[in-house]
Amino acid sequence: MDYGAKVKTLRRVMRECRYYDSLGSLLMRDQWLELPERDMAYRQKMQGFFSGKQGELFHDKEVAQCAAFFENFDPANLATDLERGMVRYFLYLYKTRAKIPPEKLAQSSALTARAQALWREAHDKSDYALFKPVLKEMFELKTEIARSVDPNKPPMEVLADMCDEGISVETVDRLFGELRDGIVDLLGKIRSRGVDVDDACLRESFDKEELKRLVRHLAEGVGYPPERGEFYGEVLHPFSVSIGPSDARITTNYDSLQFGIFSTLHEAGHGLYSLNADADVVDHHLWGGHPGAFHESQSRFYENIVGRSREFWVHFYPRLQESFPHFKKVDLQTFYRAVNKVRPSLKRILADELTYSLHPIIRFEIEKAIFDGKTDFDRLPELWNDKYEEYLSLRPQNDREGLLQDMHWGGGYIGYFQSYTLGNLYGGQFRHAMLKTVPNVYEEIASGNFGPLNSWLTEHIHRHGRVYSPQDLLARATGETLKSGYFLDYLREKYKEIYKLPD
Amino acid sequence: MDYGAKVKTLRRVMRECRYYDSLGSLLMRDQWLELPERDMAYRQKMQGFFSGKQGELFHDKEVAQCAAFFENFDPANLATDLERGMVRYFLYLYKTRAKIPPEKLAQSSALTARAQALWREAHDKSDYALFKPVLKEMFELKTEIARSVDPNKPPMEVLADMCDEGISVETVDRLFGELRDGIVDLLGKIRSRGVDVDDACLRESFDKEELKRLVRHLAEGVGYPPERGEFYGEVLHPFSVSIGPSDARITTNYDSLQFGIFSTLHEAGHGLYSLNADADVVDHHLWGGHPGAFHESQSRFYENIVGRSREFWVHFYPRLQESFPHFKKVDLQTFYRAVNKVRPSLKRILADELTYSLHPIIRFEIEKAIFDGKTDFDRLPELWNDKYEEYLSLRPQNDREGLLQDMHWGGGYIGYFQSYTLGNLYGGQFRHAMLKTVPNVYEEIASGNFGPLNSWLTEHIHRHGRVYSPQDLLARATGETLKSGYFLDYLREKYKEIYKLPD
Repeated sequence: MDYGAKVKTLRRVMRECRYYDSLGSLLMRDQWLELPERDMAYRQKMQGFFSGKQGELFHDKEVAQCAAFFENFDPANLATDLERGMVRYFLYLYKTRAKIPPEKLAQSSALTARAQALWREAHDKSDYALFKPVLKEMFELKTEIARSVDPNKPPMEVLADMCDEGISVETVDRLFGELRDGIVDLLGKIRSRGVDVDDACLRESFDKEELKRLVRHLAEGVGYPPERGEFYGEVLHPFSVSIGPSDARITTNYDSLQFGIFSTLHEAGHGLYSLNADADVVDHHLWGGHPGAFHESQSRFYENIVGRSREFWVHFYPRLQESFPHFKKVDLQTFYRAVNKVRPSLKRILADELTYSLHPIIRFEIEKAIFDGKTDFDRLPELWNDKYEEYLSLRPQNDREGLLQDMHWGGGYIGYFQSYTLGNLYGGQFRHAMLKTVPNVYEEIASGNFGPLNSWLTEHIHRHGRVYSPQDLLARATGETLKSGYFLDYLREKYKEIYKLPD
Repeated sequence: MDYGAKVKTLRRVMRECRYYDSLGSLLMRDQWLELPERDMAYRQKMQGFFSGKQGELFHDKEVAQCAAFFENFDPANLATDLERGMVRYFLYLYKTRAKIPPEKLAQSSALTARAQALWREAHDKSDYALFKPVLKEMFELKTEIARSVDPNKPPMEVLADMCDEGISVETVDRLFGELRDGIVDLLGKIRSRGVDVDDACLRESFDKEELKRLVRHLAEGVGYPPERGEFYGEVLHPFSVSIGPSDARITTNYDSLQFGIFSTLHEAGHGLYSLNADADVVDHHLWGGHPGAFHESQSRFYENIVGRSREFWVHFYPRLQESFPHFKKVDLQTFYRAVNKVRPSLKRILADELTYSLHPIIRFEIEKAIFDGKTDFDRLPELWNDKYEEYLSLRPQNDREGLLQDMHWGGGYIGYFQSYTLGNLYGGQFRHAMLKTVPNVYEEIASGNFGPLNSWLTEHIHRHGRVYSPQDLLARATGETLKSGYFLDYLREKYKEIYKLPD
């Protein structure tokens, strides 16, 4: 075996695969910010073509030989963690991508286009019956794709692993059970305490141009580099894209003060994680951070664990008051409680920090029930509504408020939702570890110094990109496997103070 | 021979080739509007990769067999003009692309990146010596590329054909000689007449936001569809990109009133041409219009033949006066003469309508002298400066004012400049033909009706995309081969009136 030649092939595939990723990100950015509606059909075909070309990278004989070589190669014989990381990530991609027949990918593109259109119609008419057949098709196709990757594993296991490298559905299920019970319990305590948090200050009218300046100030304040920002890019549902190693762009939305501020901090968190890989990591094509739960952990860290902390606002509240003078009559504590008000909602994207996690958990539980054959598609709305009633004490009155609320399933995002809530668990565990080594990190934030925070995250997470598997990276950063307790403890401590809960 | 299979291959290559074109346009748009400077190096590699993949389309055995089949196939046996157009354009691409070795394309990407950087340094220091070696390399590489396409043709002939399908350097040389002499003669008459046109009104300060609104109003007024506009995209040097059959985006620049208005009309012309292909033409992958001279003919038509006409301003001048009240003291005729003032300039992009054509002619003559071995690279600045002095009576005082004024040669645009001036010749000939069938077209414009104008251009040019070769399309629209006389007559008539020249 020619080791040198195999490494060369490996590097080529990794490099080219990133070019397609970059292209995909650029196309996504364009689709939501610029693409004329009338050119959508052409764009979908173009996108399908390039997805297919990316898939072909893994359907090549030379690449198969390269994969076979490294599968039987002792990683200990590789010189550096970087090389081991490159081999590991290549094999991960290879195992999940090489076995999907190209025609399944093409079918998936076409089905997604159709499902999105049907979802929109069903959503607008609030009629699940219009969406049901194509949703069923979507789950069936995803099942076939999962079986082509590994016929010996449950399909949901395969799909979840394709979103979050190395994840186990069983582990997620256990952690989500603990978290769900903990949150539902805490929510019950908050309800029975009967404290009404006054958040009227967040609903006063505001100057949108001033909000644009403020969110830029906040994002730059936490360290997001302005020359790589894209704050004028306003979209309905903010997102960020990692287009190149020094090019991570964020979007935002200015419909409400709260959404504008916290969605910007969220996207800035994604951006920082994407941009802060070491030069060596870039050189090994492992930049951009782990997609899925790890990325969500960083975005939600900046949005909530940092952005919804009292210390964050000790520093930034005077600037907010300057931007919007009506806050001069509102004291910091009132504002802090307002942005942390618990208000269970039927819609995930409107959720507060406490109840947010329940929404992806519900979705995960329903997906699992579908894949385990424990529900059929006729029963989905009822199942969905029952779970909202059980966990959040709210019952959707129609399909649009319920399972048609977002287009994700129509977009083919199946086996994917756990990432959001897992991101919260990661975040809680990182916070705990960080406070052990940097106990004054929040005091530094209160004085406007984000250096210790960013240094810790960069050192333990960002700089490594995808060099270590998510599990290894977590272990290196926190010394433990994933637990639900740290995030739950954080929530309990925070809401106990805000809602003056008894011990 | 299996005709059906060959057609299938042909359609696939044409379709996929367009996807790469679309990608290239999107990357270009992004590079000038969004791309962070720090990610430029990565982007260049990514771009090189996808250019290479596009090239590979034509280095495929199946495609070679397909080309061989259609080269020996009588076009009369094809059912429709659309099919004949698809075959013609495929063979044109195949002949010019298939023979370029992939490594030459990679070399060209790398050289372009280096040449652009060196051009920038040389430009900033106004020192041609820094740029000379890489410019020489660039011409040598282009010569090699041209020889690989066709060793039996002069390299400039091959390169010009790659920019403008079917063009002949000899014809261009003859037409440019006639045009140059005609313009130089007219310019001499204008100078000796000694009339000073007052254009002070164009240099007063103005509100940029109002200019943004005005140019949008003008572009929409001539028919550019607002939902496909991108007017906020401000760049140093405006451009437009055709990303998909219903997606042609324009950029602009608001540094001066005159530049803002006429560059927007110019880009709107490109946009209209790109967008107005028939559905059948889209279906045969022949949308977007002919690149090169034909595209310039449409942009310059809307910029000058329409936008700098008195009738255009009869309609739009009241709106301009409303936007910028200082024009209320300026009568229409004064304004009309101001935007048509002849002011020979050292820089192409600052030129007026009359002298503009001389700039690309000079570049064409110099390129021809290089390829014909009639000059060497040491002499270029002198040759350049001599020609400016001879034709425009202006002599650059340094290299930055002279041959370093733009980055085009550094960007590999060689054998390309003739398009700009050819576009003017096409435009003059279209204008003549249009006036024969729609004699009142300017009166309609004066009353704000752009329907007859757009109908004629759509019917004779836009709707056909690339179905007919440029030569055929010109003949169908005007009944003649390309002449210099129509454009020259138009110029003579226009400037005679403005400068009160004797008969």
